[in-house]
Amino acid sequence: MSKAITQKSDDHSKWYTDVITKAQLADYGPVKGTMVIKPYGFAIWELVKDEFDKQFKATGHQNAYFPLFIPKSFLAKEADHVEGFAKECAIVTHSRLMSDEDNSIKVDPSSKLEEEIIVRPTSETVIWHMYKKWINSYRDLPILINQWANVVRWEMRTRLFLRTSEFLWQEGHTAHSTEAEAREETLKILDIYESVSKNHLAIPVLTGKKSESEKFAGAVDTYCIEAMMGDKRALQAGTSHYLGQNFAKAFDVKFQTDSNTEEYVYASSWGVSTRLIGAIIMVHGDDNGLRLPPSIAPTQVVVVPFFRNDEEINKIRQYINPYLKELESKGIRILFDDREKISPGFKFNEWELKGVPIRIEIGAKEIESNELTIFRRDINQKEKTPINTLTSYIQDMLDQIQQNLLKQADEFRKENTFIVESYEEFKKVINEGGFVRCGWDGTEITEKQIKDETKATIRCIPFDENPENKKCIFSEKDALHEAIFAKAY
Amino acid sequence: MSKAITQKSDDHSKWYTDVITKAQLADYGPVKGTMVIKPYGFAIWELVKDEFDKQFKATGHQNAYFPLFIPKSFLAKEADHVEGFAKECAIVTHSRLMSDEDNSIKVDPSSKLEEEIIVRPTSETVIWHMYKKWINSYRDLPILINQWANVVRWEMRTRLFLRTSEFLWQEGHTAHSTEAEAREETLKILDIYESVSKNHLAIPVLTGKKSESEKFAGAVDTYCIEAMMGDKRALQAGTSHYLGQNFAKAFDVKFQTDSNTEEYVYASSWGVSTRLIGAIIMVHGDDNGLRLPPSIAPTQVVVVPFFRNDEEINKIRQYINPYLKELESKGIRILFDDREKISPGFKFNEWELKGVPIRIEIGAKEIESNELTIFRRDINQKEKTPINTLTSYIQDMLDQIQQNLLKQADEFRKENTFIVESYEEFKKVINEGGFVRCGWDGTEITEKQIKDETKATIRCIPFDENPENKKCIFSEKDALHEAIFAKAY
Repeated sequence: MSKAITQKSDDHSKWYTDVITKAQLADYGPVKGTMVIKPYGFAIWELVKDEFDKQFKATGHQNAYFPLFIPKSFLAKEADHVEGFAKECAIVTHSRLMSDEDNSIKVDPSSKLEEEIIVRPTSETVIWHMYKKWINSYRDLPILINQWANVVRWEMRTRLFLRTSEFLWQEGHTAHSTEAEAREETLKILDIYESVSKNHLAIPVLTGKKSESEKFAGAVDTYCIEAMMGDKRALQAGTSHYLGQNFAKAFDVKFQTDSNTEEYVYASSWGVSTRLIGAIIMVHGDDNGLRLPPSIAPTQVVVVPFFRNDEEINKIRQYINPYLKELESKGIRILFDDREKISPGFKFNEWELKGVPIRIEIGAKEIESNELTIFRRDINQKEKTPINTLTSYIQDMLDQIQQNLLKQADEFRKENTFIVESYEEFKKVINEGGFVRCGWDGTEITEKQIKDETKATIRCIPFDENPENKKCIFSEKDALHEAIFAKAY
Repeated sequence: MSKAITQKSDDHSKWYTDVITKAQLADYGPVKGTMVIKPYGFAIWELVKDEFDKQFKATGHQNAYFPLFIPKSFLAKEADHVEGFAKECAIVTHSRLMSDEDNSIKVDPSSKLEEEIIVRPTSETVIWHMYKKWINSYRDLPILINQWANVVRWEMRTRLFLRTSEFLWQEGHTAHSTEAEAREETLKILDIYESVSKNHLAIPVLTGKKSESEKFAGAVDTYCIEAMMGDKRALQAGTSHYLGQNFAKAFDVKFQTDSNTEEYVYASSWGVSTRLIGAIIMVHGDDNGLRLPPSIAPTQVVVVPFFRNDEEINKIRQYINPYLKELESKGIRILFDDREKISPGFKFNEWELKGVPIRIEIGAKEIESNELTIFRRDINQKEKTPINTLTSYIQDMLDQIQQNLLKQADEFRKENTFIVESYEEFKKVINEGGFVRCGWDGTEITEKQIKDETKATIRCIPFDENPENKKCIFSEKDALHEAIFAKAY
C-alpha cells in the first residue's frame, strides 16, 4: 500500500477519493451511482449506528421494518412530497426474466405489472398507509418507530458516501396526538443528532431551521444539523421534520381523542445516513489519510511489533499480551498486527491512512527499557511511556484524542465563520471558502438571487438568531432572520 | 386484545396467522407479498441477528454492504444460477416520474434505462464482480464477508415470515485459495447455524446435504439445517453452500498462488433469514400464542401489578423496584406493566400471546406474605416464591425454560420421525405428518416420483447416514443414501 495520497490542499476532491480508496472504505458498484461499503468503512458505520440506536431506544423508540416497495399512486397522495422530492427514483415495471432464443436473458413482457412500483426514496407514504391501520384512538399514540434501511434516489452526479443512488440510513417516523408533542419529538431528535455528532463523531454542528425552499417537501418545518468540512463547505448531516398533519391528511389517519372527538394525527420524521462517514473523512482527515475519533474507530489501538523471526515475535507477545488483555478488558479495541513479510514502515502508513488513533511500537529496545513508543494520530507525534502504567495512559490518551479532534474542528469552523455587513464581503467569503452569518429579508427571491450569483445557500436559520436592527445582506431591507450561508455538498 | 386465537390443532395455518396478528409481530404491506415487521417482531429479529453476528465476527468474518441493484446481464453469467433460481424477480426499467396533464403521476418514458436492473434476489453475482477487482494474489485471501440486507424474490403464494417478496437476511460470501479451506468454511458456518438454532432459538435441527435437485443453483454442494414445525412439516431454516469455482469462473476471478501459478478462487455462500421468526412461532407456539425462548425474548420477565390507585401502585413500586434493579443488573430484560385502566387479566392474556417467558404478579397479598406469584409460560403454570431470593430464582427459571423448550421440541421431533421399511408406511407417515428416514437409490427420477405422489421432498441426506444394506423405499434398488423426507414449507 502506497502512502502517496493527493495532498488535501492541492485538490480536496481528489484527496477525498484517495482516502476512501486507499483506506479501503468504499468502492463504486457496477450499476452507475451505487456504492459498495467495504468492511473497514462498514465497521465505522456500525459503531456510528450503534450509538444512535442506543440513544433512540433510550428515548423510547422502537425499531421496525417497512417494505422497500411503494405503489406508484402513494407518492402522489401528498402533493408537495411528490412535486418537490420524489421524482427521480427507481421504478419497477416487470417481475420475470426469460431466456431468449440465443440463450441470453430478457425481460418477460407478459410479466408487466398492473401498477408500477417505486423503490422507496423515503418511507413516509408506506408508513402512513400502515399507520392508518394501526391508529384508532389516542390510546394508540404516540407511535415512536425507527427503521434502519436502504433507500434509493436516482442521482446523476454521485460521490461516495455523500451522494449515491442507494444509501443506508435510519428514518424515524412518529405519530402523536398533539402538535406540541410532535414538535417536542422533532427537537428531541435534533438534540440527539447534535450530541452524537459532537460527542462521538467529534463533529461540531450548527443547529437551526431550514428556509422554506430548503425544507423537506411535505414538512411544515425542517430542522437540521450542519457541519463544516475541511474545504470550508457545508454538509447537511441530518434532518428532523415536523410534518404537522400533512401525511395524516394525505393518508386519512384520524384518531379518537380522549374527549371523544376525531382529529388528524400529528407527525415527525427524521434521518441520518452513511453520508456521516463522508463528514468524518472531510472534517478530520489530513494529508496522511483518515483520523478517526476513538469513539467510532473500529481499531482504537494498533500494535506494530518489530521482529525478524518466530522467536522475536513470541518474546514480544509474551511481554505485551498481559497488558493488551487488560486494555481489552476495559473495552478498548486493539489489533495486534503480526503480519509477516510486511515491514513496520508499511504498516505505519497503512494504519495512519486508516486513521487508527494510537499506534504502539514494540521491539527488543522497548522490552529492554520497559518503555513503549506511542504514536498519536491526531497530532502525528511519537512519545515514550513506561509499560507498567499502559492502561491508564492509553485510556487518557484516547480521551484526549477524542477531545482534541472536536476542538480542532471547532476552532477551524470558528476561524472560517464570518459575520459580514456588506454583500461584497459576503461574496468574498463565499468565494474564498467559509460560512457567513448575516441578515436576510426572509424572501425566496433574495435567497434565489444569492444562490444564482454565488452558489451559496441558506444552511440554516440558527436557533440563537437575533435579526433585530439587522439589514438583509442582499436587499438591504430590514432583516427578518439571521441566516447561515455557505456553499454546500 | 382478545385472547381468542384459533386453536393450533383445529387449523394450524389460521393459528399461525392469528399469532402473528395478535402478538403484533408483522403485517402485510401495500404491495402484494411485501411484509411489515412490527416492533415486537423486529425486536425478536434483532436478538436473533445479534447472536449470529457475534458468532460470525468471533470466527473472523467482517460485515460489508453491496448494492441492491444488479445489472441484468450479471444474472446470465452463471448459467445454472439464472436457470434454476433468479427468474422471478423485480426489474427496474425507468428512473423518473412525471406529472400527467390531469395531475396524476406517470412514468416518464424518456427515463427508460439502457440496461434493465434487477433488485437483488441474492448477491453472488454483484459480489463476485467486486471480488474480481479486490483479489489478485493469495495474499488477498481468504475474504470472509457477510452482509445483513433485504432481498427480493417475486413470490405468488406468500406467507408472513416464511415466504414474502422481500425479506431480511444475512448472506455470507467467502473466497479462498483452496477447496479444502472453502469446504471447511461451508461446514463451520453450518455448525454456527446449528448451534444458534439449538442454544438460542431452542430449535433442534437436522443437518446434512441437499440432493442435487434441491441444492442452490450455482452451488457444488448445499448443506442445510432443517427443523420440524408444530404441524410436523419441515422448514429449511438455513443453508450453507460450497460453490467450488463456479462463480469465480463466471466472473473470471483468478489469483496468483504462492508458487506463482494462476488459479480460480474457491467460494462459499450461506444465509439465514427472517424466516427463522416463522420457525420460532411454529416450533414453540401453543393455543395461547407465542412461547419465546428467553435467549431471544425482547421481554424476559413482565411484572403485572394489581392496583386500584396511585397509592397502591407506588407501594408496589417501592417494594419491588430494588429487586427488579438487581435483575436488570444481571442483564435480564424486564418490563413493568403499569398501564392504567387495563385489567390484570387482559395484561395476562396479552403477554401470554406475546410469549414472555416469566410473569410476576404482585399486589397487596404478595407484599404482605413476601411471596410473589410467578407464571411460567412454557408450562403455563403458576407457583409462589419468596421475594428475597428472586434473582437466583428468576435466573434459574429462565435457564429451565430455555432448556425445556428445546427438550419439548426435541421430543416432538423424535416422536414424529420414523424409520420406515415400506413405501406404504412411508405414505402413511407423510400423509399423517412427520419426517421419514429411509433408503433412497440416489436418482432424481425416484425423488420426483415420490414428490409427485406424496408431496414429500428430500429435506437432507443426514451426515450420519448409513446406506449400507438398505433398499430404496420407492424403487427397492440398493440405497445410495439414507435421506430424510417430509412435506415442507
